[in-house]
Amino acid sequence: MAQRTVYVDGSYVAEQDAKVSVFDRGFLFADGVYEVCSVLESKVVDFDGHMRRLRRSTAELDMGLPWTDEALLEIHRELIRRNDLTEGLVYLQLTRGNPGDRDFDFPAADTGPTLVLFTQTKSLLESRTGRDGIRVATQPDWRWMRRDIKTVQLLYPSMAKMAAKAAGADDAWMVEDGLVTEGASNNAWMLSHDGVLVTRELSSAILPGITRAAVMAIAEVLSLRVEERAFSVEEAKQAKECFVTSATSFVTPVIALDGVPIGDGMPGEVAMKLRAAYIEESRRRAI
Amino acid sequence: MAQRTVYVDGSYVAEQDAKVSVFDRGFLFADGVYEVCSVLESKVVDFDGHMRRLRRSTAELDMGLPWTDEALLEIHRELIRRNDLTEGLVYLQLTRGNPGDRDFDFPAADTGPTLVLFTQTKSLLESRTGRDGIRVATQPDWRWMRRDIKTVQLLYPSMAKMAAKAAGADDAWMVEDGLVTEGASNNAWMLSHDGVLVTRELSSAILPGITRAAVMAIAEVLSLRVEERAFSVEEAKQAKECFVTSATSFVTPVIALDGVPIGDGMPGEVAMKLRAAYIEESRRRAI
Repeated sequence: MAQRTVYVDGSYVAEQDAKVSVFDRGFLFADGVYEVCSVLESKVVDFDGHMRRLRRSTAELDMGLPWTDEALLEIHRELIRRNDLTEGLVYLQLTRGNPGDRDFDFPAADTGPTLVLFTQTKSLLESRTGRDGIRVATQPDWRWMRRDIKTVQLLYPSMAKMAAKAAGADDAWMVEDGLVTEGASNNAWMLSHDGVLVTRELSSAILPGITRAAVMAIAEVLSLRVEERAFSVEEAKQAKECFVTSATSFVTPVIALDGVPIGDGMPGEVAMKLRAAYIEESRRRAI
Repeated sequence: MAQRTVYVDGSYVAEQDAKVSVFDRGFLFADGVYEVCSVLESKVVDFDGHMRRLRRSTAELDMGLPWTDEALLEIHRELIRRNDLTEGLVYLQLTRGNPGDRDFDFPAADTGPTLVLFTQTKSLLESRTGRDGIRVATQPDWRWMRRDIKTVQLLYPSMAKMAAKAAGADDAWMVEDGLVTEGASNNAWMLSHDGVLVTRELSSAILPGITRAAVMAIAEVLSLRVEERAFSVEEAKQAKECFVTSATSFVTPVIALDGVPIGDGMPGEVAMKLRAAYIEESRRRAI
């Protein structure tokens, strides 16, 4: 792969020059938020939804976001152009910036935020996991209590994924009080035997998934009933289907949970239908 | 202040050149641990204790630490020399390094960790808070469940401090199920009216403070009884004294909790005695 061009604080630089100060709040305090937009046919998927959530994250943290959506879209597009990106993603991270020294206090108002964006090439449409599904292992949800804010405090999700892989699975579902909160980097869904799609209601326990919302809208168009409520690991194991949703995995079937096959152990029919519909919709609406 | 020299990945550089890759796991995933050693008379306090805890943190996270204590001490000393540091601190951060791209999976074994150290000048002995004490406000403890690992996931402690300051206090004590876990960046203590020092027992709920351990040893020498157990906010409000311990605040009296004066609202006698003894011991044993 040719060397990437990365956006750091107003400049487009070669990836090996893409650096931030060691005094940046993102590096010292995990004081940063992020978004990931998928890219199909060199266009950005669900940009407005991701920017709405970014603004919500920064507002919840009293963090400045001195860019318009238009300015941020232009950076996304410039990176896609410069990197000849057809399919993959654009990652955006905003931190509370570099106040020049380390201090638990938030920096003074004149400390500008740090903005970093980069691209990743990734096969999203023809992915193995999208076709064959994934095996999931449960892990206790040991994250902080404001999971609705999309911060870079991702050490535990990363640890949970590694633990799931060590247990022979592809990914983790996190569990609190016996109930599934969400996947390590996606929202968790099940389809009951009476045909109801179930995904946990929004609260500070989970991230308000942009793809989750889009799939809910598609389910409505397809006349599928959706219930927003928590479900247990046992309920999911006995479900007709399970799947996950996220910006870059779209809708991905879950074929086993803690070693128990879901349904017949094959990607579910409804999950695959939602995946196809989501991809079609995303292609059509990408900007 | 003259410009600082900072250590980044084997080099001593000017602070404005002290940078890490945007792909560093510390920046993208908060996948890093840290230690802070105080410096008195240009010598490092409690170095062995901090290095033991650093090794524990990295072991708990399956993170490599390919430096001997001797090598790390030499970096501390070189930074103290280059920065003419008499009194203050040395901050050390280790991350899982830069695997070249963003991925929740831990990097391959050949990805070296990132090591950053820098100094801060700070009046530790003649500090206003050490003399006059601090006012503390309680905040819910919304951190993750492995607070015994000293990671850079410090966004919530930072938010809690800001909320405490907004409430007119100097610092926050975090509370879970009605019980004090610890301060935002220190361990919490109280002295009961029958003369027993109380501080929460070690568990995954709190950080195993190096200064906490040193103060426990000093209390023993001074024939003060110590009980390691959780205490409630109410119990602390009615205590004879309250105080906090940390590497850079040593022993600092707490004179009010949620607006309620502790004891007579002045720095406690036992706290000040422990502070003096800790400082004396630290000066004697610094290396």
